[in-house]
Amino acid sequence: MSIKAGIIGGAGYTGGELIRILINHPSVHISFIHSRSNAGKPVTDVHSDLIGDTSLEFTSEIAQDIDVLFLCLGHGESTKFLRETSINPSIKIIDLANDFRLRKDRKQPELNREFVYGLPELNREAIKTASNIANPGCFATTIQLGLLPLANTGVLKEIYTTGITGSTGAGQKLAATSHFSWRANNIQAYKTLTHQHLGEIGESLDQLQPGTEIELSFVPWRGDFTRGIFISSTVTTDLSLDELYVIFEDFYKEHPFTTVSRAPIFLKQVVNTNKAVIQLEKVGTKLVIHSAADNLLKGASGQAVQNMNLLFGLDERTGLNLKPAAF
Amino acid sequence: MSIKAGIIGGAGYTGGELIRILINHPSVHISFIHSRSNAGKPVTDVHSDLIGDTSLEFTSEIAQDIDVLFLCLGHGESTKFLRETSINPSIKIIDLANDFRLRKDRKQPELNREFVYGLPELNREAIKTASNIANPGCFATTIQLGLLPLANTGVLKEIYTTGITGSTGAGQKLAATSHFSWRANNIQAYKTLTHQHLGEIGESLDQLQPGTEIELSFVPWRGDFTRGIFISSTVTTDLSLDELYVIFEDFYKEHPFTTVSRAPIFLKQVVNTNKAVIQLEKVGTKLVIHSAADNLLKGASGQAVQNMNLLFGLDERTGLNLKPAAF
Amino acid sequence: MSIKAGIIGGAGYTGGELIRILINHPSVHISFIHSRSNAGKPVTDVHSDLIGDTSLEFTSEIAQDIDVLFLCLGHGESTKFLRETSINPSIKIIDLANDFRLRKDRKQPELNREFVYGLPELNREAIKTASNIANPGCFATTIQLGLLPLANTGVLKEIYTTGITGSTGAGQKLAATSHFSWRANNIQAYKTLTHQHLGEIGESLDQLQPGTEIELSFVPWRGDFTRGIFISSTVTTDLSLDELYVIFEDFYKEHPFTTVSRAPIFLKQVVNTNKAVIQLEKVGTKLVIHSAADNLLKGASGQAVQNMNLLFGLDERTGLNLKPAAF
Amino acid sequence: MSIKAGIIGGAGYTGGELIRILINHPSVHISFIHSRSNAGKPVTDVHSDLIGDTSLEFTSEIAQDIDVLFLCLGHGESTKFLRETSINPSIKIIDLANDFRLRKDRKQPELNREFVYGLPELNREAIKTASNIANPGCFATTIQLGLLPLANTGVLKEIYTTGITGSTGAGQKLAATSHFSWRANNIQAYKTLTHQHLGEIGESLDQLQPGTEIELSFVPWRGDFTRGIFISSTVTTDLSLDELYVIFEDFYKEHPFTTVSRAPIFLKQVVNTNKAVIQLEKVGTKLVIHSAADNLLKGASGQAVQNMNLLFGLDERTGLNLKPAAF
Repeated sequence: MSIKAGIIGGAGYTGGELIRILINHPSVHISFIHSRSNAGKPVTDVHSDLIGDTSLEFTSEIAQDIDVLFLCLGHGESTKFLRETSINPSIKIIDLANDFRLRKDRKQPELNREFVYGLPELNREAIKTASNIANPGCFATTIQLGLLPLANTGVLKEIYTTGITGSTGAGQKLAATSHFSWRANNIQAYKTLTHQHLGEIGESLDQLQPGTEIELSFVPWRGDFTRGIFISSTVTTDLSLDELYVIFEDFYKEHPFTTVSRAPIFLKQVVNTNKAVIQLEKVGTKLVIHSAADNLLKGASGQAVQNMNLLFGLDERTGLNLKPAAF
Repeated sequence: MSIKAGIIGGAGYTGGELIRILINHPSVHISFIHSRSNAGKPVTDVHSDLIGDTSLEFTSEIAQDIDVLFLCLGHGESTKFLRETSINPSIKIIDLANDFRLRKDRKQPELNREFVYGLPELNREAIKTASNIANPGCFATTIQLGLLPLANTGVLKEIYTTGITGSTGAGQKLAATSHFSWRANNIQAYKTLTHQHLGEIGESLDQLQPGTEIELSFVPWRGDFTRGIFISSTVTTDLSLDELYVIFEDFYKEHPFTTVSRAPIFLKQVVNTNKAVIQLEKVGTKLVIHSAADNLLKGASGQAVQNMNLLFGLDERTGLNLKPAAF
Repeated sequence: MSIKAGIIGGAGYTGGELIRILINHPSVHISFIHSRSNAGKPVTDVHSDLIGDTSLEFTSEIAQDIDVLFLCLGHGESTKFLRETSINPSIKIIDLANDFRLRKDRKQPELNREFVYGLPELNREAIKTASNIANPGCFATTIQLGLLPLANTGVLKEIYTTGITGSTGAGQKLAATSHFSWRANNIQAYKTLTHQHLGEIGESLDQLQPGTEIELSFVPWRGDFTRGIFISSTVTTDLSLDELYVIFEDFYKEHPFTTVSRAPIFLKQVVNTNKAVIQLEKVGTKLVIHSAADNLLKGASGQAVQNMNLLFGLDERTGLNLKPAAF
Repeated sequence: MSIKAGIIGGAGYTGGELIRILINHPSVHISFIHSRSNAGKPVTDVHSDLIGDTSLEFTSEIAQDIDVLFLCLGHGESTKFLRETSINPSIKIIDLANDFRLRKDRKQPELNREFVYGLPELNREAIKTASNIANPGCFATTIQLGLLPLANTGVLKEIYTTGITGSTGAGQKLAATSHFSWRANNIQAYKTLTHQHLGEIGESLDQLQPGTEIELSFVPWRGDFTRGIFISSTVTTDLSLDELYVIFEDFYKEHPFTTVSRAPIFLKQVVNTNKAVIQLEKVGTKLVIHSAADNLLKGASGQAVQNMNLLFGLDERTGLNLKPAAF
C-alpha cells in the first residue's frame, strides 16, 4: 500500500519531525509539504539536517488526491485553516494542534468532520475506524500514560504532578526563555497549575474512571535540554507495588510503544524514539509514577504517524522503529 | 579581626568552594588546607581555576592555633575524624556533612561538643552564641526556605515537593550517573520519597509548628546542569496569595540572603551566589512555592561562611557578596 | 538475504550503536552479542534505551555459523582476541578498533587475514571484494572527508586542522574529563599535534596524492556535547572557490552519505545519522574546509554497517536511513 | 577614594556584568545606569539575578558630576552617542564597543577625545595616563594574550587560529543561532577568516613586531555554552618549548590576570573571573598556544574595570577578585 500524505505547516518543529519520519516510512508517499512562508524553497533550506535525504520543495498548493492530511499548525489555526480551505471529504485529517482534542470540540458539524482523541493506549479501537484524529499534546500524553492504568482501576483521587520539558516543546519562535544564554543550565516553572493540557488529561481520566472528581495539580518546568518530557506523579493508594506493577503491565501489554520498567527509567531512554517508559515506586501509601517520552515523537509527530498507521490498517509500528539517540 | 581558619577535606567540591570564598574574605586567614591524599601538592593542582589566585599547598598537618575548623568530609566521616583527632576545645567547628544535623546527633558528649543546626533563617540567634555548627544539606536548605514561613504560621499538613539538583550535588566521585555521556540532556528521579534530608527538614518544620504530623512527599531529580537546586512544593491552604506573600516577606525581611520575589524566579538567578529566591503561585486552594539556591553555596560552603560570620560577630554578608554567574 | 551477524564487545558505545542499527536492518539477523562481563544479562540492562525493542541477552559463546563478525573492542584488543579465538575463515570480520588500519597492520599472515581500510569514499571498490575491514577512526573519517578531494587534485601541502568531539568519542570508562561537573560548559585541547588518527589520515592522503610530504597539524578539542565531530581545516591554494566546489561535488557525487553543502553547515545536521557534510569557504589564498559527522555512526558503527552492506553486495544505504536527531 | 561612575546601555550583557562588578567594587559609586528602553524600571527587572543586591533603577538622565562613563552600546553606537550627547570633558570614557579601537579611530578631534587601546598587558603605562579607553574585543583579547610574547620576540609570521565562543558573545538579541533548540549540543563556524577583531589584533602585533607582514587565519566557532572563549593558535618556530615558556612567563610576570600554565588549561578555569590562562605545546617546529578567558569579563566588562582601576591609580585587581564558577 502507498498512502499519499500531505503536510500543512511543514516548516515548524512538528512538521519537520513528521517529514523526518515519513520520508523513510515504507508505506507513505509525501505528496506535498505546504508552507505559506517557504513556498518554492527546498525543504532542506529549513530542515537542513535532511540534506542529502530529500529534494522536496515546500509548496503553496494543496493537492486533493491524497489519503491523509497532517495539520502541523499553531494552536487554534487548524480550525481557521479548515474553514478557509476546501479539503476533499474523503481525506483523513490528523491534527497535531489542540483544536479538536476536547469533547466539546470533537464534533465539528460546520466542517462535517468528527475527531477521535488519538491516544492509542486509550482509544485504539476507535482510532482504527476513525476518519479524523485529534493528536494529543506532549505533556498530556506523557502524564496520561502514567495515570491511565490507575484510572482504569478506579483509584485516582488527588494527583500531584511535576513535569519537565525540553525547549522544542515551545516551538521555534524566538522568545526570551528560548534564548540559549538564558535557558542553558537553567530551570523555571511556568503555567503552574494552569497548563492547557489539563483539560484533555481530565477527560481521559474521566473516560476510564467516570463519576469521580479527580484533582490534578500539575507544575510544569522548562528544562535545559531540547527533547523530551519527564514526569513524576504522586498519588495515595493502598495497593501494593506488586499489585500496581501487574495493573500497569496488564494495561500496556498489547501496546508496543509503552513499556513498564521495573528498573529506574530516565529521559534519554526514549529520546528520538516513539516510545514511552513508565516506572513505579512506593513508600507507605504514597505511589510515585515516573513516565518519560519524546515530546516531538510520542508527544507529537511520532504519535501522529502511529495514528495514521492505525487509520489505514497498518501495523502500528510501521516506519516508527527509530534508532534511539541514546546519548 | 582576622579569623584563622583550617579546612579538613579541602580537595572535594565543598572544600574547593570554601577556599574560593575564604581567599577573598576580608576577615579570614586560611591557616591550612588539609587533604590526606593531596598533602604537599599545590591547591591549584586540584582546584585549577584558582591558578594565579593562591600558592597554598595541601597539608597533612592540623595546626591547633586556629579559630575555626571546617569539616568538608563525606557523610559519616566527620564523627570518625573528630574521634581520631584531637582538636583544641576552643576551636569552633563547622561541619558540612550530615553527622550532627539531627536532634539526636547534636549533643556529642564523647566529643565534648554540642552542635547547632546552622540554618540562619531558622536559628540565627542560637548560631551567634554557638560553638559548633551542623551546616544544613543543600536540598534541606532550599526546601526549608520555601516552607518555614508556612510552618511558622502553623498551616502545614501535606506537602508534595519535587526538586532538581545539579551534578555537583553528588560530589566528585566518578559514577555511571555522573558520566557526561549519560547525564547530558538527561533527567532521572532518585531516592524517591526516601532522600536523606527528610529528617532535618522534618525537625525544622516541627520546631516552628510542633505537634502536627506533617507529611512531606519529596521526589528528587538529577538535572543536566552542574550547579543549583530548584524546588516546587505544593500545599493546600485557604490563605490568599496576598496574605501568603506578606507572611513570607515578613519572615525573611531581616535575612539578607533570602529574597521573596513576586516575579517568576529561575535557577540561574542564584547560581554562584549565596542567595536563595522564593516565589508563590496559587490556584484555588493549591499553593505552589518555588525556591532556588546554589547547592554548593547557600546549600553548603556559602552558608558555612555565613555561619562563621555569625559565630564571630561579623556581618552575615562579609565575604559573600559574590558576583552571580547570571548566564 | 539474511546476513547472520555476531558482535564482540557489545556492551560499549560502538557495540551499542551497532545493535541499535542492526535490530532494524532488514537484511541482518543478530546471532549473538558477546560481552564477557555481561554474559547472561539482557542487552537492555546495559543499553536501557532498547527497552521494548529487544529481548536479546549478552552471551559468552561465539557461534561459528555466522556471516560477519563485528569487533567492538578497545584499541589493541582485536589482535589479541583474534589470536586467542578461533574464528571460521569464511566469516568476514569488521574491526572497529585501530588494530588493522595502517598499511603495516593490514596483512596479518598469522591470522591468515588481510584487511582493507574501510572508508567507502576512498576505497569502495576494494571494500566490495574484501573479506576483512579495518573501520576508520572517527576523527580520521571526518578529517579525511574534508581533504580527500584536494589530495585527489594533488594540491595538498600544509594543513592546519582543529576538531572538536563529543564525550562518546572517549568511550564509557569513567575519567576526570568525562565527569559531568567538569565537562559541562567546558572546552579543552588534548593530544595536541599527536592524535593517534594522524597515521591513517596520512596514509589515505598519500594514496591519492603520492610522493608529496603533506604536513597536517591537528589540534583536537574535547567538547561539551555527547555526539559528533566538527572540523575546520585551513589550507593554501590558488584554486577558486567555484573550482573547489566542483572538485568536491564531483568527488562525492556517487557517495550517498557525504554531501557537499554551499550553505553553512553545523554539527547537529548529522547527529544520529550516518551522514557527513562538507562546506568550503575561501578568503585570499586561504581555503577553509568545514566537515561534520556523528562520531559513533559515520565515525564508527554506522560506517561499519555501510561497509557490511558493501561486503555483501547490498545497497550501501540499507538499514542506514536514520532519522536525524535534528535538535 | 570613591569614583563616581555612570553606565550607558545598562540593559545589555556587558552593561549587566559591569553592574555586577561595580556594586561590589570598594572604590566605586554607581551614579546612574542609563537605558533608554528601560528608564524608570528597577535594574532587577532586567538583571533579575541582582535581586536582593540592588534597588537601583534605570534612568534616562545623564548626570555630569561623575568621574567615569562606561559606554556599553552596540558597535558603532558609541560614536553616535558621543556626537549627540554633551559629556563634560573632565569625565573619562571607557568604551566597550569597537568604535575607537583601531589606530585610525583613536583620535577623535570632533569629540575632542583621544582613546588608548585598553589591553593592560600591552599598554598598561599608556592606560595609566590616558583619559579615554577603547576596551578590546573578547576574541581580540584572548587571541592577543596568546601571541603578544611571540610578537615581542619578533618571531611571528603565519598564524593559524581556531577559537570558540559562548552564546553571550553574540549579545542578547534573539536570532536563529541563539535559539536554545538550535545551539544546544551544536557547533558552527561563522565569519571564517573575516572576523571583525582581526584589525585590532593585527595592529597590536604590529606594535610589538613592526615591519613584518603577519598573516593570521582565524576560524571562529559558535559553542554550546554561555560564557568563555577558548583559542588554539598554531605557529612555526625553532625556539624550544622551554625557551618559549620563559618568554611567556617573563612577558606576563607583572600582569596579575594573565597566567602561563605548564599544566593543561581548560575553559572553565577562568569562567566568571577576570583571568586569562595560557598553555604552550610543541611538536617538531609547530608550536600551539592555547588561551582562554571569559568573554564578558577579561573580554569585556572585567577588563573595563581593570582599565578604570589603572586610569584612577588603583591596584589593577581592585573589585576584580571574583569567585570562579569552577563548575
